[in-house]
Formats: sequence, structure tokens, C-alpha cells
Amino acid sequence: MNRGRFITLEGGEGTGKSTLLEALRERLQMVGRTVMVTREPGGTELAETIRNLVLHPPEGQVWSSMAEALLMNAARTDHLEKKIRPALAAGSWVLCDRFADSTRVYQSVQNGVGVEVLKMLESSVLGETRPDLTLVLDAPVEKAALRRAERGGHADTFELRDKAFHEDVRQAFIDVARSEPERCVLLDASREADEVAQNAWHEVESRLFELRQSLSS
Amino acid sequence: MNRGRFITLEGGEGTGKSTLLEALRERLQMVGRTVMVTREPGGTELAETIRNLVLHPPEGQVWSSMAEALLMNAARTDHLEKKIRPALAAGSWVLCDRFADSTRVYQSVQNGVGVEVLKMLESSVLGETRPDLTLVLDAPVEKAALRRAERGGHADTFELRDKAFHEDVRQAFIDVARSEPERCVLLDASREADEVAQNAWHEVESRLFELRQSLSS
Repeated sequence: MNRGRFITLEGGEGTGKSTLLEALRERLQMVGRTVMVTREPGGTELAETIRNLVLHPPEGQVWSSMAEALLMNAARTDHLEKKIRPALAAGSWVLCDRFADSTRVYQSVQNGVGVEVLKMLESSVLGETRPDLTLVLDAPVEKAALRRAERGGHADTFELRDKAFHEDVRQAFIDVARSEPERCVLLDASREADEVAQNAWHEVESRLFELRQSLSS
Repeated sequence: MNRGRFITLEGGEGTGKSTLLEALRERLQMVGRTVMVTREPGGTELAETIRNLVLHPPEGQVWSSMAEALLMNAARTDHLEKKIRPALAAGSWVLCDRFADSTRVYQSVQNGVGVEVLKMLESSVLGETRPDLTLVLDAPVEKAALRRAERGGHADTFELRDKAFHEDVRQAFIDVARSEPERCVLLDASREADEVAQNAWHEVESRLFELRQSLSS
């Protein structure tokens, strides 16, 4: 059986990752792919307990960036072992809402952990399981803030930070995309959702569908 | 103000770490030192939440060695930042029941994480804050098992493993002590508690009490 493909969606809060993920799931299923949708931090029972610990620490307590980076990587280890690798091995296409690039970005901005330490952690945890394609959604900070406000709900510790933080996050995601063009595509997320999905689908088709696979689908 | 000294106690379960820790605390206080006693995993509110997650995972769930190693290091980061480093800076002597060597041992034995990855994690988390002295308590596995049984209470996920596991843990602690003789002392923990404490105190005095400090105490 062919190994599946691993696609991750990255970008700041409110850039439309969940909407795009649903659109990609539909299209992949329409062309006969088995799809597993998942998210980080979380994705497995143990990883979700870590997610909860990181996003909602006990009253009055604050995690340092280094502690967050280690916790995110612990959650990712469980997620990879129990869910992502088995699904890929079984031939599924895995769509993951946030993955390792989010740790690179959120735990390094504003005097967080050094990029070298983050890359070393990432390398130890991922091993051979790197995304085949990463779609980085980019939109002006004001536009993303508006989407977050419309969405409502309970804001977590990352969403509550100020505008300068969100600007730094946006720039860090752009830097990730530019540093690994063979894996990453930067998508203009200020466009209409349909257009973003069309652009994303074009990248999926052109980069991940081998001729052999296309003919047999 | 002089920086305090950082002493860690290591060794398998049932080798008498808690008893020795109390004896050392008393002696240090008798010679006028301010002492802070702490433990790992745990030691701070956030680190204790991680301790609980590692030692008592949800029913039916198992952490991999890599996930455990990352969680232990996340807990250690918080413990160092909020408790150990401030205490040392204020001149306290810090006595810690288990520290980084326990991660090196428990997460590497029996096909666990590679030693190089563990050392890299340790180095990123500890930075300059390495123990001034590590007392490694060593006793035959049967003797330690008897002590654990006498102590009773609720056994955690590490205590419940089989004899081969405890033999491997014992050997791994011996290896750590031998690999860093300038920091570590291997103590024969099969002796009477008073004798172990006397041997440990001799090491503390000869290695950590500078002449200047002794005279001023």
C-alpha cells in the first residue's frame, strides 16, 4: 500500500485554517482519498491533556517559552506515534491544523526560545515524519483579529496577547515559509475562502499527486 | 551574597534518598546554612501537574520514553526558573530528591531515548545550573524492593516494573556516577542509614565547604 501524504496548515489565529481544512478534506475525498483530519496541540487523548495544560494553566501561573516548547513537543510525540504515523502507513492523507511550525513560531517570538534549540527538538521528535506540504495562511493582523472577534468563544492565552505579538507571529510564519520553499507555500488568506481553497488545491494537485496516482483515482 | 550550593540525590526507588535528604538538611542547618528541600519530578505548582500526568496517565494510556523525557524536562524548566535558581541566588543550599540524572536513567533504559538526545535536552534546560554535588545511592535490587514494600503506599508506573528493569536502572545510575566523578559520588546504600549519612556528609564537607565558608560558619 502507498504511504499517504501529510499536509499541515499553519498561520496565525483567524487566518481561516479550519475553513480551508474542511474544503481540502472534501476535495480529497471527492477524488477518492482516505482522509484523516487532526489538530495540534492535541490530536490524541494524552496530547489533549497537554494541550489543556498549556493553553489554560492554573490561575496565576505562567509557562516559560522553553517549558511550552517542551510540552508541545511531548504532545507531538504522542500524536505522531499513535495517530499520524499509523494513518500515513495505512495510506491515509493526513490533514493537520497546526504542527511543528507553530512551535517554531509561537515559542520563539518576543525573546522566546532560540531557533537552534527549537529545531533540535523538532528534529528529535519528528524523525522521518515531516510534512509533505505545509500551507501557511497569511493575512493582515487587523483582518485576522476581526475574524477571531466574529468567531467569538473563549480566548486562550495566545489569542489574548497584543497587536505587536500578532505582527511578530505573522512575520515569523512568513519567515518559515520562505526558509523552506520546497515544503511550504505561503497563501494570501485575505482573499475569499473559495479562492484560498482553489489556490491551496492547485498546490496539492501539482505537488502531491503523482501521475500514477492521478490515473488510478 | 554567596551563591548557595546545589546537591542532588539520585538512585533507584527504595535506596533511602528521602532518609538521607533529611539527615543532610539537619546537618547543614546545624552548621548555619539556609536549606531548601525540593524534589523532582515536581517542586513547583506547574511541575507537580506534569509529575501527576507522567506518573499517573489516564486509564489505558501509556507515554513513550520520548514523551516522558520531554515532560520531565518541561517540569524541570519550571522548577529551575521559579524555585532552584532563585534559592541558589539568595544563598540557600538546595537539596533535591532526584534531578536530571533520573531522566537520563529512566528514559534511556530498555530501548528508551538515545543518550545523545537526552543530554542535548538536559543541556538546553539546565544551562549553567548544574548540581555542585550528586549523591548516587546504590543498593542491590532485592534490598531496595524490600524497602519499597515496607514503605507501602501507592506504587506509580515506574515502581511497578519488573526486576530486570530495576537491575537496568541500578546499572545506569552506576554508569552516570562513573562518567562524571568530579560531580558524582556513588554511595553504598545497603549500609545502615546513619553510616550512609556519615559518608555523604564527609563528601559534602570535603567537596563543598570552602575554608572561608567553614571559618565564617
